[in-house]
Amino acid sequence: MPAYSTNMRLKFPILALILELVTILLYALFVVYDDGESSGHDAKDNSSDPHHEKSNPVALYPMFQDVHVMIFIGFGFLMTFLKRYGFSSVGLNLLLAAFGLQWGLLLQNMWHMHDGKIMVSVGSMINADFSTATVLISFGAVLGKTSPVQLLIMTLLEITTFCINEHLAVTMLGASDIGASMTIHAFGAYFGLAVARVLYRPGLRNGHDNEGSVYHSDLFAMIGTVYLWMFWPSFNSAIAEPGAAQLRAIVNTYFSLAACTLAAYATSSLVEGKGKLDMVHIQNATLAGGVAVGTCADMAIGPFGAMVIGVCAGIISTLGFKFLSPILASSLGIQDTCGVHNLHGMPGILGGLAGILAALLGKKENVFPGTQAAALASSIGFALVGGAITGLILKLPFWGQPPDQNCFDDSIYWEVPEEEEEAGESLAHADHSKNKSEP
Amino acid sequence: MPAYSTNMRLKFPILALILELVTILLYALFVVYDDGESSGHDAKDNSSDPHHEKSNPVALYPMFQDVHVMIFIGFGFLMTFLKRYGFSSVGLNLLLAAFGLQWGLLLQNMWHMHDGKIMVSVGSMINADFSTATVLISFGAVLGKTSPVQLLIMTLLEITTFCINEHLAVTMLGASDIGASMTIHAFGAYFGLAVARVLYRPGLRNGHDNEGSVYHSDLFAMIGTVYLWMFWPSFNSAIAEPGAAQLRAIVNTYFSLAACTLAAYATSSLVEGKGKLDMVHIQNATLAGGVAVGTCADMAIGPFGAMVIGVCAGIISTLGFKFLSPILASSLGIQDTCGVHNLHGMPGILGGLAGILAALLGKKENVFPGTQAAALASSIGFALVGGAITGLILKLPFWGQPPDQNCFDDSIYWEVPEEEEEAGESLAHADHSKNKSEP
Amino acid sequence: MPAYSTNMRLKFPILALILELVTILLYALFVVYDDGESSGHDAKDNSSDPHHEKSNPVALYPMFQDVHVMIFIGFGFLMTFLKRYGFSSVGLNLLLAAFGLQWGLLLQNMWHMHDGKIMVSVGSMINADFSTATVLISFGAVLGKTSPVQLLIMTLLEITTFCINEHLAVTMLGASDIGASMTIHAFGAYFGLAVARVLYRPGLRNGHDNEGSVYHSDLFAMIGTVYLWMFWPSFNSAIAEPGAAQLRAIVNTYFSLAACTLAAYATSSLVEGKGKLDMVHIQNATLAGGVAVGTCADMAIGPFGAMVIGVCAGIISTLGFKFLSPILASSLGIQDTCGVHNLHGMPGILGGLAGILAALLGKKENVFPGTQAAALASSIGFALVGGAITGLILKLPFWGQPPDQNCFDDSIYWEVPEEEEEAGESLAHADHSKNKSEP
Repeated sequence: MPAYSTNMRLKFPILALILELVTILLYALFVVYDDGESSGHDAKDNSSDPHHEKSNPVALYPMFQDVHVMIFIGFGFLMTFLKRYGFSSVGLNLLLAAFGLQWGLLLQNMWHMHDGKIMVSVGSMINADFSTATVLISFGAVLGKTSPVQLLIMTLLEITTFCINEHLAVTMLGASDIGASMTIHAFGAYFGLAVARVLYRPGLRNGHDNEGSVYHSDLFAMIGTVYLWMFWPSFNSAIAEPGAAQLRAIVNTYFSLAACTLAAYATSSLVEGKGKLDMVHIQNATLAGGVAVGTCADMAIGPFGAMVIGVCAGIISTLGFKFLSPILASSLGIQDTCGVHNLHGMPGILGGLAGILAALLGKKENVFPGTQAAALASSIGFALVGGAITGLILKLPFWGQPPDQNCFDDSIYWEVPEEEEEAGESLAHADHSKNKSEP
Repeated sequence: MPAYSTNMRLKFPILALILELVTILLYALFVVYDDGESSGHDAKDNSSDPHHEKSNPVALYPMFQDVHVMIFIGFGFLMTFLKRYGFSSVGLNLLLAAFGLQWGLLLQNMWHMHDGKIMVSVGSMINADFSTATVLISFGAVLGKTSPVQLLIMTLLEITTFCINEHLAVTMLGASDIGASMTIHAFGAYFGLAVARVLYRPGLRNGHDNEGSVYHSDLFAMIGTVYLWMFWPSFNSAIAEPGAAQLRAIVNTYFSLAACTLAAYATSSLVEGKGKLDMVHIQNATLAGGVAVGTCADMAIGPFGAMVIGVCAGIISTLGFKFLSPILASSLGIQDTCGVHNLHGMPGILGGLAGILAALLGKKENVFPGTQAAALASSIGFALVGGAITGLILKLPFWGQPPDQNCFDDSIYWEVPEEEEEAGESLAHADHSKNKSEP
Repeated sequence: MPAYSTNMRLKFPILALILELVTILLYALFVVYDDGESSGHDAKDNSSDPHHEKSNPVALYPMFQDVHVMIFIGFGFLMTFLKRYGFSSVGLNLLLAAFGLQWGLLLQNMWHMHDGKIMVSVGSMINADFSTATVLISFGAVLGKTSPVQLLIMTLLEITTFCINEHLAVTMLGASDIGASMTIHAFGAYFGLAVARVLYRPGLRNGHDNEGSVYHSDLFAMIGTVYLWMFWPSFNSAIAEPGAAQLRAIVNTYFSLAACTLAAYATSSLVEGKGKLDMVHIQNATLAGGVAVGTCADMAIGPFGAMVIGVCAGIISTLGFKFLSPILASSLGIQDTCGVHNLHGMPGILGGLAGILAALLGKKENVFPGTQAAALASSIGFALVGGAITGLILKLPFWGQPPDQNCFDDSIYWEVPEEEEEAGESLAHADHSKNKSEP
């Protein structure tokens, strides 16, 4: 094990400020409001705008806020299940998403500027939020084993890769992926797994004392789960064609998640000796239906079709947590802290396959099986290659990664209240101070 | 006390999967999108649709999401106040609501199919969510004393009963109950109380060690309280006639809750020896104003009328927790874990009575005192009879109900993190592992 | 130290009920629905209504709910960081806001009645919620050191002062302050600091055992932080002119907060010896960008202009927590529990100054530097004078303020679960009860 310098005092602030200042400079040069005033003649020929944002620029705003809650509360709190890593989970989630959305908005719109300008609308804010989801998924795979500096670098590189793949798969190939099963979920999962593979830590082969939950940390995580569960229909429908297609995306996601939940609970109880439910399954596998229905959310697959997808996703995801994750860790050296392979990886692929099948069955116009398959392959390919390269960069020894024994522990990068660092002493002290009236 | 088999390994997964598969089959046969495409000729004559959902099918979506948050975060976290029953509270809440909404959507729309099909819109999703509220209210009465299998059966039976009563009271009789004081709140409370009465446990006569809160569990519960409080105007107005009536429903609920809050705080302090506030009152009685203003939320009762209703509800509810609940438990054998009689039962009746009074005063057209009284009587009657029958079914000895000593304890149906099961040992262990650098 | 009577049993209920009854009486006399029915001839000439609320009275409702969440969840949970003051933080936040919104709606609309009536719309509900924000900011300055009775009196007096200043600065002077950097944030902060100065407690000069966080209380506080962060674009845009101006307010706030977050994290790490992040900074300074961009949120300052404001606010706020707060406490006798000077005070002034600069640069029509400067001065002046007078009233010895040793402790005004009051005993007891099967 090499000697680590985990003091972030210079490297972290310098990196964060440079990233922010470069971003501001680029915004000064390129980004304007899409308010119909900045470039008058543009408003007319923007007939491809599917959301009538010109007539009501805030029509999508409630959808945006639902997605915003999923990104910052949903992903952030879902990862607070670890007993001593809650500050990092919700705190670094905020940091990475705050930087990621600024960077994503730039790169996503680089391909279609108007008069050399990027026009910001509520729709582009939704897409910017989406781009950060890839990073937050990958963050789950490496949670507890990476420094804030490493994570900022990963954000930069992953969002860049994501934007290239999305442009290729959706804009150029014309694949349909309204809820982004392929371009966000499978992409984010396999990117993160590739990073995790490169950063493999033999010293954590037998687990770590802090790699588990306590009672209240599991409840905090359920805040994340339930918000993701509730607002997933918004995620899958936010940028759908208004009208019937958007309604289908809402309805399909609603029923896929509901059916997935029953399947996840049933499977969780079935695979455990005493028939007990496992919080890890409930926190994650109940959401797999939202992931898996993403690609064909706006297609006419019927509510019952969505429910079938949801049931399959719930079962696969739970079985993955129970049986596949231990094998990945022991045999392939992939230490996937949050099990993103089970929540985003396999259900994302399932979503891609469902999209191919729906295309074969003609469930949406102008959607072709070959294109869908190419988009799925592209997403996984970019993810694995991009993730591996990113992993190699992150492995450089000067980014302040934590030594094995300090993994999954907030106190290496955060000031943590006394009682956590000196539990024994503080507990005694607390007893004393709380019982002043007693002898 | 009979011998219990609380192992859920077979009975729970089998029941859950059968329910889900039957539901999917029924959806395959009957449920389609209400997207104006599934049955073209229907769109025209659907002139009774009050929400212009044809012109904008997602117009009600923000209201739906508010209701969704109330169901899954609001009810789920409100019940996490128990010190060792948080997993079940928020977890089983998710399970029951996920099944309930699928079942409720089927039964609610059975009465008015179009060409043999049920058309799913955002409006019907709101109503499906509503139907689950009845179960979640009843869940509060039996919280900690029932198995997941029993609760799934209760969900099936209660939503069925609810749909019959709602069809009778609202569609056939024509009663007005926009915020469902009678058909959801009073119904859910008395259904749950009837179940609780049948399942009376003499062994819990003197309470149970786990039937109380700890500091942080009370804070988790406040998440539920505050979300219910904030979004209650959406609950009471979501399916109101657009325009003036919907605005009245929003405004009346907003002011009823605000006034109720002052009354609940004042009463809580007044009835306690040292003038201290009691978290149980604050978590629940502050919401009674939302329940009680439900029936006449869309009527022209004036903001001050809504405030009077709120003050009465806040006082009655707090007094119920303080004085009535202990009597119900000791004299009538009704062990009401969350005190749903105080939050939903009495305020629901108050709401029904307020509706009769408002009808007498002519506060809404085509609303008649006799009809309102009949709807109130019907709701309570169906609840008591349906709840009693359900209770008898749940009392059958093979549903895995917990023995008395394991009530209010997650660990009987959930894998619970070590430290909770072996507090003493784990604490010592935690001290040790957290202080590696110390001798 | 005088002898205190902290028993609230009579004084608190009497005050709360009198306030509520007087409010109901005033509502009965003056408040009606703005539903286009209450006063028919009024609907036509209300052409100054900027939100087309006549055509769709619930158009602003999603924005209102976002603001509502900020007030009740955001402010409420942000203050739960203290280890033993969570009940009061979220509970009294609910109480004060529930009373404040009723009082604020009356006073804000007193100036422009129609036929002697106040017309309630969703827009006026948003403004009523806004008025409570001033009190909740000031609450942060005196958190843990005041009784519920004192806080209700402060609510009454502060909202009254706020309405006078707002009417003067915005309606009469015509200053532009769409996100209320000056009239809410700076006002609320300096009002609270003036109260805190008058209520200075020499006995807390060296801190207090309970004036700190524990691990989970910091996570609860992050719920507040993240909700404020996410919905701040709604706060700054809710009452903006629909269309381009409202979009600008959303976009500017979104980017200001994102940039502010990077700056706050960088600064927090930079000023700490070991480069670690400090939860106090993260919980608060990440939000300063929302405060500081408030005044010019709807102006054409460009996304990059908003980001510059955000970065400045994040740096200033973090430095304030690190260096200025200790000086204010030790040299000026201002004990600012939550550091509202750093989150609302300085960023509020920064926002006012940015507004003056934007006016100089002509970023919005009919906005003048002199007017803006006058509004800033007026806001701070009213705050300091109003706060000082309020502080003197609150210092009267019969409002039940807590003695020094009971500050920052819920148990003086709340029933607190046993384990918190008798930690030592209860812990032993808990161990015992949880390990029944062990010897």
